[in-house]
Order: sequence, then C-alpha cells, then structure tokens
Amino acid sequence: MKKLINSPDSVIADALKGIEASDKGVRVDHENRVIFRATPKDAGKVALISGGGSGHEPMHGGFVGQGMLDAAACGEVFTSPTPDQVLAATVGVDNGAGVLHIVKNYTGDVMNFEMAAELAAGEGVNVEAVVVADDVAVEDSTWTAGRRGVGTTVLLEKIVGAAAEEGRDLAAVKALAEKVLEGGRSMGMALTSCTVPAAGKPTFDLPEDQMEIGIGIHGEPGRHREPIADAKTIAKQLVEPILADLDYSGSSVIVMLNGMGGTPLIELYLMYGEVVELLEAAGVTIERNLVGNYITSLDMAGCSLTLVKADDEILGLWDAPVNTAGLRWGL
Amino acid sequence: MKKLINSPDSVIADALKGIEASDKGVRVDHENRVIFRATPKDAGKVALISGGGSGHEPMHGGFVGQGMLDAAACGEVFTSPTPDQVLAATVGVDNGAGVLHIVKNYTGDVMNFEMAAELAAGEGVNVEAVVVADDVAVEDSTWTAGRRGVGTTVLLEKIVGAAAEEGRDLAAVKALAEKVLEGGRSMGMALTSCTVPAAGKPTFDLPEDQMEIGIGIHGEPGRHREPIADAKTIAKQLVEPILADLDYSGSSVIVMLNGMGGTPLIELYLMYGEVVELLEAAGVTIERNLVGNYITSLDMAGCSLTLVKADDEILGLWDAPVNTAGLRWGL
Repeated sequence: MKKLINSPDSVIADALKGIEASDKGVRVDHENRVIFRATPKDAGKVALISGGGSGHEPMHGGFVGQGMLDAAACGEVFTSPTPDQVLAATVGVDNGAGVLHIVKNYTGDVMNFEMAAELAAGEGVNVEAVVVADDVAVEDSTWTAGRRGVGTTVLLEKIVGAAAEEGRDLAAVKALAEKVLEGGRSMGMALTSCTVPAAGKPTFDLPEDQMEIGIGIHGEPGRHREPIADAKTIAKQLVEPILADLDYSGSSVIVMLNGMGGTPLIELYLMYGEVVELLEAAGVTIERNLVGNYITSLDMAGCSLTLVKADDEILGLWDAPVNTAGLRWGL
Repeated sequence: MKKLINSPDSVIADALKGIEASDKGVRVDHENRVIFRATPKDAGKVALISGGGSGHEPMHGGFVGQGMLDAAACGEVFTSPTPDQVLAATVGVDNGAGVLHIVKNYTGDVMNFEMAAELAAGEGVNVEAVVVADDVAVEDSTWTAGRRGVGTTVLLEKIVGAAAEEGRDLAAVKALAEKVLEGGRSMGMALTSCTVPAAGKPTFDLPEDQMEIGIGIHGEPGRHREPIADAKTIAKQLVEPILADLDYSGSSVIVMLNGMGGTPLIELYLMYGEVVELLEAAGVTIERNLVGNYITSLDMAGCSLTLVKADDEILGLWDAPVNTAGLRWGL
C-alpha cells in the first residue's frame, strides 16, 4: 500500500494534528474528532454542521470557517461519525439560534445525525436537518437507500453558510438549503479504485483498460464499466445523465468539476473545457465554477460533475466572503 | 494509460481551453500558449513572468493574476517553452517598467528564457532574470547543471508578485527575489512514478514496496530508493537534508508541504503534522504554511517540502492580497 501514513489505525488522529497545525482558522477537539471554528460565530446566528466518513478531504473539515461550516464531525475513513461525535459538534456550536445538520444520504450518516439531533434536542438545542441525495447515477447503493449524497454538499455548504452568516433564522436557512438541493445534481466516474488504509488493498479491481461510470465516493458500484474513452466521451457520460434527470436548459448554474483525489489538475481543467462545451450547447448558462479536488475518495483517479441552479439570491450568497482552508475568497 | 485526455497530442491545447473557461482572471493566447492576466497591471509597474514545461499545475498558469504573475508560458508536458513563447509573454506584459523572468534551473528553460530576454531587449524591453535552484537532493540531474528548481518557485512568485504590485522598481524586485532564493530550500519524495501522456507508460519503475527519496519534479532520479517507511520517517528524510544544507534554527519560515499530484489531501495534512514536530524541535518558527498541490508532477504520488526564511518584509508581502486560481486570499 503506497500511502504517506504512520499506521492504518492512526490516520485520522494524525491527519487532524496536521490540519490543526496548518489551519489557524480552526481548533480541533481531538477526543471527539470534531473540527470547530477557532473563533465562534456571533451569538444569535444559526450554526451549520456537517460531517461524515473521512477520506473526502477537503470536505468537510476544510470547509469549517467564516462563511461556511461551524463544525465538522470526522468519522473513520469512509465510516459515519458516531452520534456522540455529532452531538459534541452540535452542542459545541449552538448559541441559541439553532443548528442545521447537513447530512449526506448514507444510511449510517442519516441514522447517527438523527440520533444526535434527538440527544441535542434533549439538551435544549433546536436542530433541523437536510439530506443531500444528488447523485443521479443509481437509486439505492451499497450504503444508501435512495440516491447517494455527493458534490452538491460542497456548494450547499458555501451557499447556506453565507445565509447563516447574514443572520437568517433556522427556518429560512433550511428552506434555502432545500432550494439548493432541488436544483443540484451530480455524476461521477473513476479510472481507478481507491485503497482504504485499514484494508490495505484496492476496494475493487478495475482493469487497466476499463473505467467505471457512475461511481460512488466510497467506490460503490456505478452504472457500468467500459473501455477507457477520450475526455469528450467521458464528459458526455457525466453531462447527459444529469440533464436527463433535471431540466437545466435556460437555467443559470454553478458548476463544479471535482477530482477524486488521484487525478492531477491538468486533467481536471481539460475535462472542464469539454463539459463547458456540452453545457453551453444544451442552453445552460454557467455563472460560476469550481475546478479542483473538493470531495475526494482517497487516492481514486477520476472526476465528478455537479450542477446547481443559481438564481440571483444563490449567486449573491456564492460570492459572499468565505475563509476556509478549502474555499477562500472575498476576505 | 489511465488519464482524462482526448489525445496525447492535444493535452496542452485542451487544458488551456478549460483554464480559460474556468478562470475569469486570465486570458489565453492559444497560438503562443501564454496565459496572461485578463486585466493588465497598472502602467509603470514591473511585470513578472514565468513558465516551463506543463504537468506541474497549478504552477505556473494558476499563479497568473493580481498579486502574482503577469503571464506564464506553457511548454509541452515536461518540456521548456520555446524562446518565441517566452518572448510573446515578455513583450505582452511590459508596460515600460521592465520584466522579471522567474526561471527554474533546467538547462532548456534557462537557455530559452535567456534567448527570449535577448530578443525582448532588441525590442526595447528591460529584462532581468532570477534562476530558482533550491532542491537540496542532488547536484546536477537529468536536465540540470547544478541544483533543480522546485517548490521555492511558488513562494517566490507570491512574495515577489506582491512587491511588484506595490510599485517597486525592477532592481528592487530582483534583489528581493534573490533574498527569497537565498533562504529557500526544498526536498521531495515519490511513492510512484508519473506517466507522460506522449510516452503512455510510467517514466520509471518503482516497485510496490519501494519509495524514492530526493525525486525531481519530472521523475529525475533522487538520492536513493528504499522500502516504504512510515510518515514520521519520511518527514525526517525531507527535513534533515534541508536543515543540513542551510541553518534555519532560530529563523522564521514559510513552509509548503506540497503534493505531487496523485496524493490526496488527507495524507498531505498528515505529513505536515509530522514536519511541524521536527521543525519545532529544531528551533524553526513556522509563521505561515501551505498544504496542498502547488507544484505537481502529473499523477505522481508523493510530496515535497519547501522552507523559505521569512523576515517581516517577506511576511508582509506574503500576507498581501492575491487573487489567482491557485492561491487566493485578502480580496
């Protein structure tokens, strides 16, 4: 296994040490494995937390900071955080205005965030939740009933984070999150598997001449495998299922062309160029974009595409200042 | 070959199309393969250009923009840009205050930038150059007489970019660049080879249980190979040669823990945590840091460490606003 680690058992603890040393905008609760803002938000503002299995960096810990999340609960690699972790995050960020849970649709995550919300309610915290289920590739999957939650999570955390920073109340923040999710869809593909440190070998075998279309962010099976094609063909296989699932023609969108962790930026830019041509031909107006590694799958090579419908409200919130390790502008 | 490309022949042209579509802060001269700022700097300010082989993204094109470079000449993968490309960049950015060439120490780059400088001088442009040769791993290498130029380039472009933005004259900007280079050292390592698209196979073979210490950014041989060790041991193999080469004890530094392109962020954070412990134990004060993919080697897995001595002048320039695809803060 070719990884820069000390031991499969200490990956999360060791990575959290590095995150804390690198990012002066956060503090780490090492016991609960929760990343908090170093300076909490002003009193009376809604707090946002997310979390999930580790191995998707910079998501979620890299999105803790001004303009995005208030805290992130970090599970073991590809493993949901426990209810106790989510509870520590929730209670730790609440300042009376309530907390929104941003949950990706995996059975363990949904269950543990729900349990934490109940426990937090018992401690007097007002919690609401939204569940991201934006992956058009498959219905139901290895760890999911319904659709998997993937790239829209990143854009959601930015947009809703700006709204919470503005001082909107919990109901308004949740309604905005639901609007973003209604207009958000994703589709991914892989050139290689990923290797979970504790397993020590690739999660699945993908022959040297094959790729998998519709892959999940933990290596869950996609729609099908086929011989590796050129970037133009792959771009079609990402764009077409998204446009078939939701009508984006005539819409303004924010686009993310995301790397899975093992694919270099030169290839992501190249793919983005192909995606832009297809979206423009389909009558979609790209207002903003992200190209890079934002929601990864350890060392998997491949990419995913996310579209979110963006009206003036959403664009204004997108452009608002953000200061996190993973996204930073306007400050 | 598992890559998101259309054809090995069109990688650069296609990637430039995507860069132009993604980054509204640049415009691309596709004929000369030069990335310029979309909005040129104010008249009377020194312009900075760099460039080199492609495959190291975001360097250099991702560092074109307010607070860093004025233009970058993009060669073929791992191939120096031609004198004509560098000339187009140089003439294109000069507004009367002169141009500083930031050149990494590879024979082809040095030769072609020198030739371009002579041609530009013939057109009345005042050109100065600095050569980055910061890699402590080896003296002389596959494409280099003397030391190779690597990570310090990124930090140099940020620091000197801020000074040029302030309006310092060409001699002052060059003197600052030389000061940064005096205090800058790097050391890298690889877990895997990289694959140049035109070659279609890994540049070198590195057995499944081996790593290479002191690797160059084009896969040039390092100091030695050995069995893959834990992150603590690898961190020592990066830190110790740097501290042996230049006395950093008692110094304030900016540190970059850089990914080679195929290594995910979770591992880079983990490595950064180990590096911080060693530097603190050696009496080095870390004032600022970067952790991520900044100077890559296509899909190579591995990382490199760069230290630059940072006095108050350099820290002030580091903190100055920057607005590029690859580095963005304060704006």
